[in-house]
Amino acid sequence: MKKVGILGGGQLGRMLLQAAANYPTETYVMENDAECPAANLCHHFVLGNIRDFESVLQFGRTVDVLTIEIEQVNVDALEQLEKEGITVIPRPAVLRTIQNKIHQKTFYQQNNIPTAPFRITPSRASLSEHLDLLPAVHKLGVGGYDGKGVTILNTAADLDAGFDEPSVLEKKIDIQKELAVLVAVSQTGEIVAYPSVEMVFDQKLNLLDYQVCPSLISTESEIKAVTLAKQLVQAFDSPGLFAVEMFIDLENNIWINEIAPRVHNSGHHTIEAHYCSQFDMLWRILMGMPLGNPEPIMPSLMLNLIGANGFSGKARYEGLEEFLRLPNAFLHLYGKKDTKPGRKMGHVTLMGSYLEDLTATADNIKATLRVIS
Amino acid sequence: MKKVGILGGGQLGRMLLQAAANYPTETYVMENDAECPAANLCHHFVLGNIRDFESVLQFGRTVDVLTIEIEQVNVDALEQLEKEGITVIPRPAVLRTIQNKIHQKTFYQQNNIPTAPFRITPSRASLSEHLDLLPAVHKLGVGGYDGKGVTILNTAADLDAGFDEPSVLEKKIDIQKELAVLVAVSQTGEIVAYPSVEMVFDQKLNLLDYQVCPSLISTESEIKAVTLAKQLVQAFDSPGLFAVEMFIDLENNIWINEIAPRVHNSGHHTIEAHYCSQFDMLWRILMGMPLGNPEPIMPSLMLNLIGANGFSGKARYEGLEEFLRLPNAFLHLYGKKDTKPGRKMGHVTLMGSYLEDLTATADNIKATLRVIS
Repeated sequence: MKKVGILGGGQLGRMLLQAAANYPTETYVMENDAECPAANLCHHFVLGNIRDFESVLQFGRTVDVLTIEIEQVNVDALEQLEKEGITVIPRPAVLRTIQNKIHQKTFYQQNNIPTAPFRITPSRASLSEHLDLLPAVHKLGVGGYDGKGVTILNTAADLDAGFDEPSVLEKKIDIQKELAVLVAVSQTGEIVAYPSVEMVFDQKLNLLDYQVCPSLISTESEIKAVTLAKQLVQAFDSPGLFAVEMFIDLENNIWINEIAPRVHNSGHHTIEAHYCSQFDMLWRILMGMPLGNPEPIMPSLMLNLIGANGFSGKARYEGLEEFLRLPNAFLHLYGKKDTKPGRKMGHVTLMGSYLEDLTATADNIKATLRVIS
Repeated sequence: MKKVGILGGGQLGRMLLQAAANYPTETYVMENDAECPAANLCHHFVLGNIRDFESVLQFGRTVDVLTIEIEQVNVDALEQLEKEGITVIPRPAVLRTIQNKIHQKTFYQQNNIPTAPFRITPSRASLSEHLDLLPAVHKLGVGGYDGKGVTILNTAADLDAGFDEPSVLEKKIDIQKELAVLVAVSQTGEIVAYPSVEMVFDQKLNLLDYQVCPSLISTESEIKAVTLAKQLVQAFDSPGLFAVEMFIDLENNIWINEIAPRVHNSGHHTIEAHYCSQFDMLWRILMGMPLGNPEPIMPSLMLNLIGANGFSGKARYEGLEEFLRLPNAFLHLYGKKDTKPGRKMGHVTLMGSYLEDLTATADNIKATLRVIS
């Protein structure tokens, strides 16, 4: 029985624990909320702050292998634990790079990974030196998450909305499509990639609207996307599960946007629609076992269930019965007691031979299945 | 959030709880072993004896809906809880009938369900009155489980091995094949059946060797088997998930062997290989929701992982790495610390288009994947 610790207790931890029960492992979770989604599915729940050095250090010393389900953790403690012989996946150095968007972008550049042209802006005042890059996206170096810490600067008149802390100013790409590719690396260096997923965003909330797999792109673009994702992940030289987000521009160029070194929202469809789900894949990696088969069983569509606008408080699910009448639809609720506008409360996956049918069904679901209070 | 209680904390409860996390439910488990497979995956674990009237009554009063993962529970308490307005699934009357093989066989007879000819034997001495039925199977009325409480009486010389308590003496069928059909009934009376699975038994341990879906039988036999299973389940007039085990004899007649009113070993393949797994199906029933789609996504084979002969103590899994290299194979370990010969320690499922490939792979797995100590 390998003792495995997870820093963070959100829905990603929850789904990781659902899969954990299939493997010979004893699970530990640390989170500062005893009612978090993962709290009741582990062997040992530890109430604690994953950003606090001492808390992470003490927690990590109780396990054989340590992983994360969110990047915002105390990396100093992880580096200390690595020195003490604890297996930390991904390697703390990866988190060190990824936690700061300035380091992340510089890393892409140093490794010849195509990414949108950018400048580093130490302060808001410095933005005026880079008017040539506008329209651009301003990204806070540290602390951004799920649409926070990101703002669009179209013209010089917008500069006041920029961040006054060290940030990245990134030339705005004319986006044709957004893709994500999951890449898995075993402890022995074996590497496999899942086929890309194509993401459609809700512009208002900057949250995923739905995603389909396979992406509706040419075989050439698919090969390029997967090759690029693997190349980037290999540059990090670390075992783990990585989600690589990218853009295709109007000229079919591919640009890396971001990477998350953990199970990811863009991999939820793999639970039912692929032979080895992203969660099973990470368990194989954590256990020091061979990787699984990332191939799809069938095309799929994944839709996040987001707290509806105008509703805050105890969550209720409207239209659940109609949803459950759909023949090939899978429900995943995250066990969060309270909803609020834009909060990720669950997701649903549709499987079927024809993507056209799936998108029609998804539109239907969006009109009927709502998280209210 | 519906509060749902499960009596029993074995592997069936464990897999039920893995699926539970997708639904709006708060889970309660009662079992007399704090280290049982289901203990760490529920919201509330209650240490208690599921055969004890007071324990079951107190436990049941804390939930909205109560179900079982093993038949040997206190039915008196369930009947009292039903009177008090708790939803008990399956209805306690079903358990009352099924717990006693004498009642079970009589129920088949009364409902015109084909089952092997039988006599009721109040004592061992009474066996001599039924020599005309030999060769026969002697089954203890109450308390048999997983091969215990069942003995074969071939000739008059074997009668001493018969049970001295009320039992059923059942004419031995010349078995061609053993099948199982899962049937689901919703709280509104909706009914669906999964396609039959064909079971191959290890004669020595009287435990399932492996099972395949679809069964290798004629369409006519498949229709007969599914129709018969539905007819039997309808006679019980209760919501729930039911596993109907049956024999096909050498003349292609189908005979009902047993029924279990719960999730069942014969439905494990549905987790990956069917749109709605047996565990998801039961959650839909418990939540008062519509039934799911029982159709297969792909043919499958399921193999129980049984504690190897000659090994008792802390479990180790030999050949796990080779197993995890198989492309379409799924692992399910039950989290039991100790192994012993014949103990169910986990199962594996294989998916693929051709059953011939699956059986070849299964033979390979049986030769390499072992639970030892």
